[in-house]
Amino acid sequence: MNIRIILNEPQYDGNIGSVARVLKNFDCHDLVLVNPCSIGSMAETMAQHAWDIVEHATICDSLHDAFFDSNLVIGTTGTRGETAGRHVRIPAYPPKRLREKLNGREGTVSIVFGREDDGLSNRELVMCDLLVSIPTSEEYPIMNLSHAVAVILYELSDLKTGDLLLADRRDLDMLYEHIETVLCNLNYPVHKRQKTLLMLRRIFGRAELTTREVYTLRGVLRLIEYHNRPDF
Amino acid sequence: MNIRIILNEPQYDGNIGSVARVLKNFDCHDLVLVNPCSIGSMAETMAQHAWDIVEHATICDSLHDAFFDSNLVIGTTGTRGETAGRHVRIPAYPPKRLREKLNGREGTVSIVFGREDDGLSNRELVMCDLLVSIPTSEEYPIMNLSHAVAVILYELSDLKTGDLLLADRRDLDMLYEHIETVLCNLNYPVHKRQKTLLMLRRIFGRAELTTREVYTLRGVLRLIEYHNRPDF
Repeated sequence: MNIRIILNEPQYDGNIGSVARVLKNFDCHDLVLVNPCSIGSMAETMAQHAWDIVEHATICDSLHDAFFDSNLVIGTTGTRGETAGRHVRIPAYPPKRLREKLNGREGTVSIVFGREDDGLSNRELVMCDLLVSIPTSEEYPIMNLSHAVAVILYELSDLKTGDLLLADRRDLDMLYEHIETVLCNLNYPVHKRQKTLLMLRRIFGRAELTTREVYTLRGVLRLIEYHNRPDF
Repeated sequence: MNIRIILNEPQYDGNIGSVARVLKNFDCHDLVLVNPCSIGSMAETMAQHAWDIVEHATICDSLHDAFFDSNLVIGTTGTRGETAGRHVRIPAYPPKRLREKLNGREGTVSIVFGREDDGLSNRELVMCDLLVSIPTSEEYPIMNLSHAVAVILYELSDLKTGDLLLADRRDLDMLYEHIETVLCNLNYPVHKRQKTLLMLRRIFGRAELTTREVYTLRGVLRLIEYHNRPDF
């Protein structure tokens, strides 16, 4: 399994260097930076012997470009669902649970980390298949960016590779568009539609669908569409 | 269980601040600094909302003073026994194994982190009951100090407290002195003595002895001494 670390709009170049060092410590070489701050000497100081990771990082100007070719997109959040009480943040898995879920899978898994000051926005979290949150103190829950990357990569290091190929992003996107179309055609209440779509996305995200499963689900959707056609 | 983080001769105050933040993130408040560098504004910047942890840290001028009142002393090493091929570094547990060992125990566990440039010396590692090493890349194994603390505290967070009270340091020290005396009296070969003592220390360290077990062991030692007395 290839793990990609995506930093979304990192604000301090020291953190970019620190994160690069963590990547190299855990044999991970796939770093993507979305609209990063300018990268200067502090990044180099913190990267130590991992400056090559920074030099070879991919730079994107949209989060979607950063993960479009990955099989699973995982968002990180310091604000847990229980406290935030927001649909979009539920459920967030602890890293140990994520490890169990990814063991034996194959594909590219992107893990997205938000800005240092306020993390990923709800709009960005909606783009993720599932969420992970490191269990931290209620008194001071917010970890430094590179510390959070260290904990996640530590937990996911040494995963067993399996033969269960995760569905690719394009198939998943088409599945979600298909579901939306079907809900529209079924006159699913407009005010509930986005919430339900997100919930379905989370459910399928947690289930880490394989390509074959996506095809089967789309077959079911086509059958629903067939029975729901105007002339039926 | 109380977890104490001991930084032995940290060289960069930014790292001290970063480590303090990690401690607070994981509800750990017991930080001890042995002969630290001078602590300035970089520490404050990196500590963020955990500056109180730095302010309340205990400062010692010897490693022994830092852990003398703890029940178990764990040394951290980036150089694994396999590669270093040195008796003193064997065996080093991965953090997950340490977690299993500490679950359900009660007492103060000190975890010692060495200098940023060359870690703990062999002399310092000998003072530890057991060793832990984070599995990292062979290409670039050395983690930043605060990243290593983050991984260890993450792994040990949320441990179940039990009623198995670990033996205290004084009892353990007396046990090890007692063993040394017995080996002397038995004319155990001088050139092997220190190695064997260290090996016994590692074995008992891994076993996390309770107070009762230490007393029983010392009873056995007394019996050996009795049978080995000159007039027997």
